[in-house]
Amino acid sequence: MRRWNGWGDATTVVELPAQGAGFLAARVGTGRALPDATLETALARVPASRLAEHPLYSVQAQDRLMHARGQSLPDWLALREGALGVYPDGVAFPQSAEQIRELLALAQERDLCLIPYGGGTSVAGHINPPASTRPVLTVSLAHMNRLLDLDEQSLLATFGPGASGPQVESQLRARGYTLGHFPQSWELSTLGGWVASRSSGQQSLRYGRIEQLFAGGTLETFAGPLQIATFPASAAGPDLREVVLGCEGRFGIISEVKVRISPLPADERFYGVFLPNWSQALQAIRQLTQARVPLSMLRLSNAVETETQLALAGHPQQIAWLEKYLALRGAAAGKCLLTFGVTGNRRQNALSLSQARQHLKAFGGVFTGTLLGKKWAQNRFRFPYLRENLWNAGYVVDTLETATDWSNVDNLLNRIETSLRDGLATEGEQVHVFTHLSHVYGEGSSIYTTYVFRPAATYPATLARWQALKHAASQTIVEHHGTISHQHGVGKDHAPYLLREKGALAMDTLQALSQHFDPAGRLNPGTLLQE
Amino acid sequence: MRRWNGWGDATTVVELPAQGAGFLAARVGTGRALPDATLETALARVPASRLAEHPLYSVQAQDRLMHARGQSLPDWLALREGALGVYPDGVAFPQSAEQIRELLALAQERDLCLIPYGGGTSVAGHINPPASTRPVLTVSLAHMNRLLDLDEQSLLATFGPGASGPQVESQLRARGYTLGHFPQSWELSTLGGWVASRSSGQQSLRYGRIEQLFAGGTLETFAGPLQIATFPASAAGPDLREVVLGCEGRFGIISEVKVRISPLPADERFYGVFLPNWSQALQAIRQLTQARVPLSMLRLSNAVETETQLALAGHPQQIAWLEKYLALRGAAAGKCLLTFGVTGNRRQNALSLSQARQHLKAFGGVFTGTLLGKKWAQNRFRFPYLRENLWNAGYVVDTLETATDWSNVDNLLNRIETSLRDGLATEGEQVHVFTHLSHVYGEGSSIYTTYVFRPAATYPATLARWQALKHAASQTIVEHHGTISHQHGVGKDHAPYLLREKGALAMDTLQALSQHFDPAGRLNPGTLLQE
Repeated sequence: MRRWNGWGDATTVVELPAQGAGFLAARVGTGRALPDATLETALARVPASRLAEHPLYSVQAQDRLMHARGQSLPDWLALREGALGVYPDGVAFPQSAEQIRELLALAQERDLCLIPYGGGTSVAGHINPPASTRPVLTVSLAHMNRLLDLDEQSLLATFGPGASGPQVESQLRARGYTLGHFPQSWELSTLGGWVASRSSGQQSLRYGRIEQLFAGGTLETFAGPLQIATFPASAAGPDLREVVLGCEGRFGIISEVKVRISPLPADERFYGVFLPNWSQALQAIRQLTQARVPLSMLRLSNAVETETQLALAGHPQQIAWLEKYLALRGAAAGKCLLTFGVTGNRRQNALSLSQARQHLKAFGGVFTGTLLGKKWAQNRFRFPYLRENLWNAGYVVDTLETATDWSNVDNLLNRIETSLRDGLATEGEQVHVFTHLSHVYGEGSSIYTTYVFRPAATYPATLARWQALKHAASQTIVEHHGTISHQHGVGKDHAPYLLREKGALAMDTLQALSQHFDPAGRLNPGTLLQE
Repeated sequence: MRRWNGWGDATTVVELPAQGAGFLAARVGTGRALPDATLETALARVPASRLAEHPLYSVQAQDRLMHARGQSLPDWLALREGALGVYPDGVAFPQSAEQIRELLALAQERDLCLIPYGGGTSVAGHINPPASTRPVLTVSLAHMNRLLDLDEQSLLATFGPGASGPQVESQLRARGYTLGHFPQSWELSTLGGWVASRSSGQQSLRYGRIEQLFAGGTLETFAGPLQIATFPASAAGPDLREVVLGCEGRFGIISEVKVRISPLPADERFYGVFLPNWSQALQAIRQLTQARVPLSMLRLSNAVETETQLALAGHPQQIAWLEKYLALRGAAAGKCLLTFGVTGNRRQNALSLSQARQHLKAFGGVFTGTLLGKKWAQNRFRFPYLRENLWNAGYVVDTLETATDWSNVDNLLNRIETSLRDGLATEGEQVHVFTHLSHVYGEGSSIYTTYVFRPAATYPATLARWQALKHAASQTIVEHHGTISHQHGVGKDHAPYLLREKGALAMDTLQALSQHFDPAGRLNPGTLLQE
């Protein structure tokens, strides 16, 4: 069963190893836990719905509680406290495009707001209901999760928008295919949500971002359905797929998604390499990427992330042995772990591996085989579960991310880390900060930063700590040529920074599109575009 | 010097070999030429300008004549007849974004229309002035052609929008880089034009379409400049690069383009392979593409194109010898020529070649080495010059193109060819029709069809023949799930078919954007969106 006040399945527990708590205590102080509310307490706080009962939706408190928040840190804190503030007045579970259109009609008739809801995994406040005088109906696409059509010649699959990562992959795998889209939220997030928020998967280096995988489909809007036909490419004017990608529910509700799929690969391996220091590591992966060696994933941890990962990995004896070996080979303090993958046919993979090793060796890379790569692959969706145990140990963890051109990666990364590390200095609190690059392009890279700090004495004070950190980092990002999001989307948390990134005319353009599709402003107000 | 009434440089002549005329005579009848007007006659027909003189533009007849038409077949006929109908009232040659903004202000002040003009190579009527009560000012970006900035770490180059293919490549090559964008119009077409009309180059398989190469830049609009920052990727809402790509001058004038570049490749080769028949050839290239073998170009001619190319190649003895050899190896009548390229480092190229040969062998492919590939590379930009000599020999040639998903390629290709082949049946005229696929994707392929027919007794009657053929093929394309253009854009010739392709809501959305950026409708009216 899904955890009501945290990540994922309630039976999955990712343990924090004994020495992990000690490692963090040395960096940010001894952890202190805040008390969790029970589900009963949280349910008791759900106010009466402003909606009359209707066959298309539920007004039950549990449905409304379970669809009130995503997985951002403010959401996490609200869920743990059991005080969510604003709740949807109802949750609809349409079974078809027809029913989505009925809900749009109902919203017009009864003056409602609608919030499209996929897997509820937003970490930027996308699906949180606004405090609105209009009743708010959350529209869960969970029941529209089937593979509807498969064109094996064109490698095109049509899905309902609510298909989760496992639902997408299991239905395709049965026919010998994969979408290859594996964001960290993959277990719960959905195809429609990936499209609406411009998601990127861990193997985007091979399969592309969702922008490349999304071939067409239908967006149900207040101006009618926007149907986008599939073409491999087109010069017939501006590409309206791009109006759907990243619209975050502001322009309509996605009712059908056509995606480009791939045959299951014959061979796939992941490898671990240690680079002696950050400066060489950064050069190495830039050159490797720009040389177009066909890798399928690449993740470079900076020195603090590498150290933290090794400390939290458990198996201290094995790690000590590994570190001795690495030091002998020139990768001692300051070393950076690079994980990379090859996916495809064996001959190509062998060449890609050989070329990657040759490149990395030139930068002092110490190759450690597939062991760490296998570990990465096993745990690739487990990181979000760790928040649970860090919380129980008395620590708060959050992540944020951006992307920038290569010439700015090191500058921006340092500025973000500094803004977070110093972010609670006035309170005398330490913040433990580390970063990896996990989506690389010829032009530049994503920057993904994790930060750990201690909760304050109360929930509101803890939220205030997060707000200070988030604001400092977000401001740093947009002031220094980063995008406010490479893969999480805008939601409500990033919306205040979008004007600085895009400029006034761009924001007016998005407003004009919102106005065009949704003149009364009923769709997901406050997300993407501020009120 | 540029040819005033045809393609390219007046000193470049691509001869039609002796047996070529006979080959065509056997297929569509003996050619008959129409008389060409002289430049003097054409200049004498240019009416007085409705514009007062101004330092920002020229009102001279020759400038206005030379910027009145592109290179579509209707343009060609009008130029040969020397009767262009509508001419711009002036031609501006801004030197800076500042001057573009001055021209926008002037247009508002004096109630003008503006037509952004790159290389004048449109084959869809993009830059033809409308018959408007407002004076029309064509804005040539020819003087804004410099490399303005080069970020070698991020592989990003900033250019003026008027840089032609050779200007882009020569400025990059001097620094060791290439853009890798080689449309057939490369000698004359410009970076800004490629962006505005969503161009695709012959090596898009490696370098991507202009959509992938365009990283950011500035669009000068009546609502102010839309500045798009470069990011390797972003999830920060809809991507406004896509509002510039394909806007065809309707939303603004591009004043600066930032592109993703590549280091010059160490190794590049092109190969020729004959497949025994179309059905096997089609399967072979689909599977080769879907297997992601990293090729840099791939062009498959159908049987009639293969036969036509061999007939028009000259060297009949060598060709006869080649055909004997091919027949012995199983590629006789019905054989299809595939040209493909590998670009990159030697080890990768060797593997790609080996894997491509292995794939193609399984479909009966007969490999002929690099000779035909070299020929292709030598002649890659010369095809447009052939129109000249076919015209002199008494034939009209035109091309059209689309793209569709693999499961529909054969169906659509056959329907297009049939619509053209039968298109002049009521007049008792034959049309020689052949096709190649030259831009392949996992999902599908472009379809590029050439058709040759005889002019009628007069220019207007010849134009009517073309209109009948073009309409039949365009209607076929949009009725059978093709895009009205894969690489030429919409312009005025394809605009009537766009509604069928995109639907009413999509067209309204584009109109809303045009309204947003250009409320008075001054920018390139009639292109992309019909009046």
